[in-house]
Amino acid sequence: MTGVVVRTKKRAASADMAAFQELGVSTTHEAMGRTGLMKPYMRPIYAGASIAGGAVTVLAQPGDNWMIHVAIEQVMPGDVLVVACTADNTDGMFGDLLATSLRARGGIGLVIDAGVRDVRILTEMGFPVWSRAISAKGTVKATLGSVNVPVVCAGAMINPGDVIVADDDGVVVVARLEAERVAAAARAREANEDEKRRRLSAGELGLDMYGMRDGLAKAGLVYRDDN
Amino acid sequence: MTGVVVRTKKRAASADMAAFQELGVSTTHEAMGRTGLMKPYMRPIYAGASIAGGAVTVLAQPGDNWMIHVAIEQVMPGDVLVVACTADNTDGMFGDLLATSLRARGGIGLVIDAGVRDVRILTEMGFPVWSRAISAKGTVKATLGSVNVPVVCAGAMINPGDVIVADDDGVVVVARLEAERVAAAARAREANEDEKRRRLSAGELGLDMYGMRDGLAKAGLVYRDDN
Amino acid sequence: MTGVVVRTKKRAASADMAAFQELGVSTTHEAMGRTGLMKPYMRPIYAGASIAGGAVTVLAQPGDNWMIHVAIEQVMPGDVLVVACTADNTDGMFGDLLATSLRARGGIGLVIDAGVRDVRILTEMGFPVWSRAISAKGTVKATLGSVNVPVVCAGAMINPGDVIVADDDGVVVVARLEAERVAAAARAREANEDEKRRRLSAGELGLDMYGMRDGLAKAGLVYRDDN
Amino acid sequence: MTGVVVRTKKRAASADMAAFQELGVSTTHEAMGRTGLMKPYMRPIYAGASIAGGAVTVLAQPGDNWMIHVAIEQVMPGDVLVVACTADNTDGMFGDLLATSLRARGGIGLVIDAGVRDVRILTEMGFPVWSRAISAKGTVKATLGSVNVPVVCAGAMINPGDVIVADDDGVVVVARLEAERVAAAARAREANEDEKRRRLSAGELGLDMYGMRDGLAKAGLVYRDDN
Amino acid sequence: MTGVVVRTKKRAASADMAAFQELGVSTTHEAMGRTGLMKPYMRPIYAGASIAGGAVTVLAQPGDNWMIHVAIEQVMPGDVLVVACTADNTDGMFGDLLATSLRARGGIGLVIDAGVRDVRILTEMGFPVWSRAISAKGTVKATLGSVNVPVVCAGAMINPGDVIVADDDGVVVVARLEAERVAAAARAREANEDEKRRRLSAGELGLDMYGMRDGLAKAGLVYRDDN
Amino acid sequence: MTGVVVRTKKRAASADMAAFQELGVSTTHEAMGRTGLMKPYMRPIYAGASIAGGAVTVLAQPGDNWMIHVAIEQVMPGDVLVVACTADNTDGMFGDLLATSLRARGGIGLVIDAGVRDVRILTEMGFPVWSRAISAKGTVKATLGSVNVPVVCAGAMINPGDVIVADDDGVVVVARLEAERVAAAARAREANEDEKRRRLSAGELGLDMYGMRDGLAKAGLVYRDDN
Repeated sequence: MTGVVVRTKKRAASADMAAFQELGVSTTHEAMGRTGLMKPYMRPIYAGASIAGGAVTVLAQPGDNWMIHVAIEQVMPGDVLVVACTADNTDGMFGDLLATSLRARGGIGLVIDAGVRDVRILTEMGFPVWSRAISAKGTVKATLGSVNVPVVCAGAMINPGDVIVADDDGVVVVARLEAERVAAAARAREANEDEKRRRLSAGELGLDMYGMRDGLAKAGLVYRDDN
Repeated sequence: MTGVVVRTKKRAASADMAAFQELGVSTTHEAMGRTGLMKPYMRPIYAGASIAGGAVTVLAQPGDNWMIHVAIEQVMPGDVLVVACTADNTDGMFGDLLATSLRARGGIGLVIDAGVRDVRILTEMGFPVWSRAISAKGTVKATLGSVNVPVVCAGAMINPGDVIVADDDGVVVVARLEAERVAAAARAREANEDEKRRRLSAGELGLDMYGMRDGLAKAGLVYRDDN
Repeated sequence: MTGVVVRTKKRAASADMAAFQELGVSTTHEAMGRTGLMKPYMRPIYAGASIAGGAVTVLAQPGDNWMIHVAIEQVMPGDVLVVACTADNTDGMFGDLLATSLRARGGIGLVIDAGVRDVRILTEMGFPVWSRAISAKGTVKATLGSVNVPVVCAGAMINPGDVIVADDDGVVVVARLEAERVAAAARAREANEDEKRRRLSAGELGLDMYGMRDGLAKAGLVYRDDN
Repeated sequence: MTGVVVRTKKRAASADMAAFQELGVSTTHEAMGRTGLMKPYMRPIYAGASIAGGAVTVLAQPGDNWMIHVAIEQVMPGDVLVVACTADNTDGMFGDLLATSLRARGGIGLVIDAGVRDVRILTEMGFPVWSRAISAKGTVKATLGSVNVPVVCAGAMINPGDVIVADDDGVVVVARLEAERVAAAARAREANEDEKRRRLSAGELGLDMYGMRDGLAKAGLVYRDDN
Repeated sequence: MTGVVVRTKKRAASADMAAFQELGVSTTHEAMGRTGLMKPYMRPIYAGASIAGGAVTVLAQPGDNWMIHVAIEQVMPGDVLVVACTADNTDGMFGDLLATSLRARGGIGLVIDAGVRDVRILTEMGFPVWSRAISAKGTVKATLGSVNVPVVCAGAMINPGDVIVADDDGVVVVARLEAERVAAAARAREANEDEKRRRLSAGELGLDMYGMRDGLAKAGLVYRDDN
Repeated sequence: MTGVVVRTKKRAASADMAAFQELGVSTTHEAMGRTGLMKPYMRPIYAGASIAGGAVTVLAQPGDNWMIHVAIEQVMPGDVLVVACTADNTDGMFGDLLATSLRARGGIGLVIDAGVRDVRILTEMGFPVWSRAISAKGTVKATLGSVNVPVVCAGAMINPGDVIVADDDGVVVVARLEAERVAAAARAREANEDEKRRRLSAGELGLDMYGMRDGLAKAGLVYRDDN
């Protein structure tokens, strides 16, 4: 079922997105029960960027960026463009002109399971991209794909309007209807990290702080002196 | 046919090389009809470098950098050393001593389908390298290869004296005899990018600016509302 | 033989470790006769870090970081934690809390043939990590492995107490009992590099400085003019 | 959301599954508009097998096959077990004992985005497996996953009860509710292949049979004689 | 320069092609001075096939097989179709219908740096294919490429009319104008293999038969007894 | 420390090797506590071979098979040649002439972390090889390595005289001094497999046979009906 553009305005609540952006990918992923993560080959083009926004999804033919142009019209302020390909591809499907256009529509970043180019200009623009590759390889505009349909991008399932959280640790997807629950769990998780950090920093061992010694002994761990 | 060093002074015109250096890899590659690009695994050792120069080509045995020493004698000011291997290899075939020597001969950079080492010193020297890998792995000097013969490097065909253009987006090769024509095409291509950027920045859609709506409709694209 | 923790205080001499840290990975690897190097997929999470220290080794189940908690108790000041997996894995087995704990025990860095997360915080902490991947993927604490047993990490053999040297060029392992000999060899090697650098910088060719022309001619190298 | 087993008896109609098994993966995939395919790294352990059946899905921790034991209880005659991992893994999570058990419950094959072992016995049993790897690597039984939840396996989205079609060309997934429609489309597609085969075999060109010459000319294709 | 079809009837002599087919890939590659080999990821879809023929080259867009239809018209009896892609791709660009057509025109095999499908039927037909992947992934017919232009396929340079030799060891390319010389060298190389095989089979060591002991000693090889 | 050949006659007992050959790789690997396995990219060149023998180890330079000639002299009847490379390499370092020589010395197979060629002849000879790749790529004889030193091959540590067990599931290494103990454990493990196979075949679930239900419930597994 290709050749379809779905118009949708469904998004998660802004407050939850703000929470994810602050708490980051690793904490969000843990709060979801360790699911929703894209594969680790998805890397940011520059360090330090951190975003959370609603997904506008694109399913594209390898080496063809026609549908990205179509998708930009569907972007609402705060959205993240998520591009999946029908086959593994590293071509440079997105560059500074598309970034200019995407930003003009309110888009805050790109996640693409393919290549990106003009990375120096994108970096100067402060326009964050997570991609499988950096490549100057030009693309054609010849074959239809779809916009705002469910896609599998870098091993993760994304529905249009899901929340995309991305930072230096990678990219995670939160289902739109779970965003509120996950945000609460993520905040709770973060809350007691500071205390842990303080104790570990003071030299307390995780073995003791987390009470692991009994479990390890029961599992059969033995200690031996070198000689 | 290995064990051959070809002495050649054929290069493209300096003005064309300067144009490529300014316009960059993506624009040059598009101006060539989207050909000539090396595979995207070729990455710079540091961000921001941008070069264009004549190719001195090396065909080397994996794990053996003898021919790089031979090649440096053939370098003319403004040249780029291009090292291909007879088999996939990531050994660190080039380091700061070779860079010092290459620079002393006027060489402006290295493109190597293998590994490079001493990357911190190379970065401090501002000596740009595009490579398949970073590796401390030492090499031997035991087997002949060739210098200034046609090579396939990272999937691209290079003849000695061809123009090598490299920046953050990758590496592209322009055939020496096509350099003038391609430079003109690249300049023309760049000329109307500024206007496009201005219009996109103002919120005009690529769909309208490029007049894509008719083609998409003819191809059968349908819009549907989410509900 | 898993489920074992070996307590050992055997380390190389501090002076030798300091020498390795200063001379770096490439020189150390050459001084060992070009052995001991981990595979080049092991990359630092940020540029510029450079360490040398004694190895505390961990053998872990993929996706399970229980034994890292166990290992931290065995760390002595100046040590480097070295984590190998029983199968290829990229999960984020180590983050900022573990780094805080490892540093509190005197640990100076991590080498892990798997993934790492919280890389922005680790970078801000100045805590150096060399890893196969960056990944937010969370791990379980369910299955025993071992600590301070011999491991193969990224293709290199490491015994507990061996010296780990790591910088921008990668990671190399020096056997504890060979550290003194290798450090001497590495210092000797470095000593005459400065003179070489000066001569090459002045335009002398490696072909002449290393006296390669005879060997190349004997091997059959021929020169030909382009026409 | 791990640690869940969903009991479901929803399957597509047998007649449609029989059609897919006969028509094969490539035709089924085309009939779906070229979607639903797993990545091509999924390969059969022996040539010539061809199956279609309902999916019982498993989400497992890397290196842990506990949930496969759980899943076998949920298998109905004619089903295919589909195993996805929470992270890339090649461990041998399935061998001849599990195959014996799976077959005893009526299971007709395995699709696993990880490794398989005992491949010689599986081949002798005529028990077909499509996997990412063959590996003797043993697994633990320590961490919960889920059974019959939606999974992403080798890049494809699978819901429990979807139809899995697998042969020498790979693995494709047909959504349960689309099976009837797709089977009809696949049969229609196949129907006129024989006539095409006959004409091509007689020397007629695809250029003429498909009427491509006009489209190629319009796209600008030019013919030139070599000289 | 895409969108071009070059008509050419230049081929190497049949006798030389017959020689290559008989001597095989490894011997031919050695006779060329160890050059001309495609990368080892190119594998036959079934064991035992062995061909040599003239190359009809195709440069295709990833995921688009339009130009293969165009190329078949340019095939002469005894030719091998060689398909290169403008970017890495594994889509199933060729199946049994194209094989039927190619064979009807006299084509004897396919070498493709992408995917192939219908492999069971191709195997039953005895139609040999060397490819990067097996994949059911369907392709479009939307973008021009070129036919009978020089291409880089799986790391090797091929000109139209060059000789393609392929067997279980891989694929090697012999330049058309070098075919006679290389065939003579390959025959000479083969001639004394039988005598070597007889002597080695009788227990004579290669160390002695090839007279390697002096060279090894000079290079510094030392023997030591285990104790 | 390269350039060394160690002469050693230390091997495990023949009876233990015979046991490993019969029990196979997966059972042997389990009996060792799931250690000792080479990475799964090591694949047999033909299906069905199964060997166990003493390791003669080779450490070779990439693209250089000189030391294989040296190693053959050190082979005793029943031995397996194990070739590791100082860097990742797929060149065809071994072919039918070396196999003829190795077999004449009593060698029963080859395990090589690089490429092999002449695979059709090797298959006809019934000479089993497990390798990383099949490649016609020729090699030089120029640089020393070592024979019968400890090596890391495909991620596993091997000492000369260790037992190499290889079959369709891969390659596993048993330390020479552990062979007797491991063989006993492997035989014990195998002993109760037949009973398990019979019960599973009769439809008993692994969940019940292994008594897993309690553990799963304790871990929190929940069952839910689909609706």
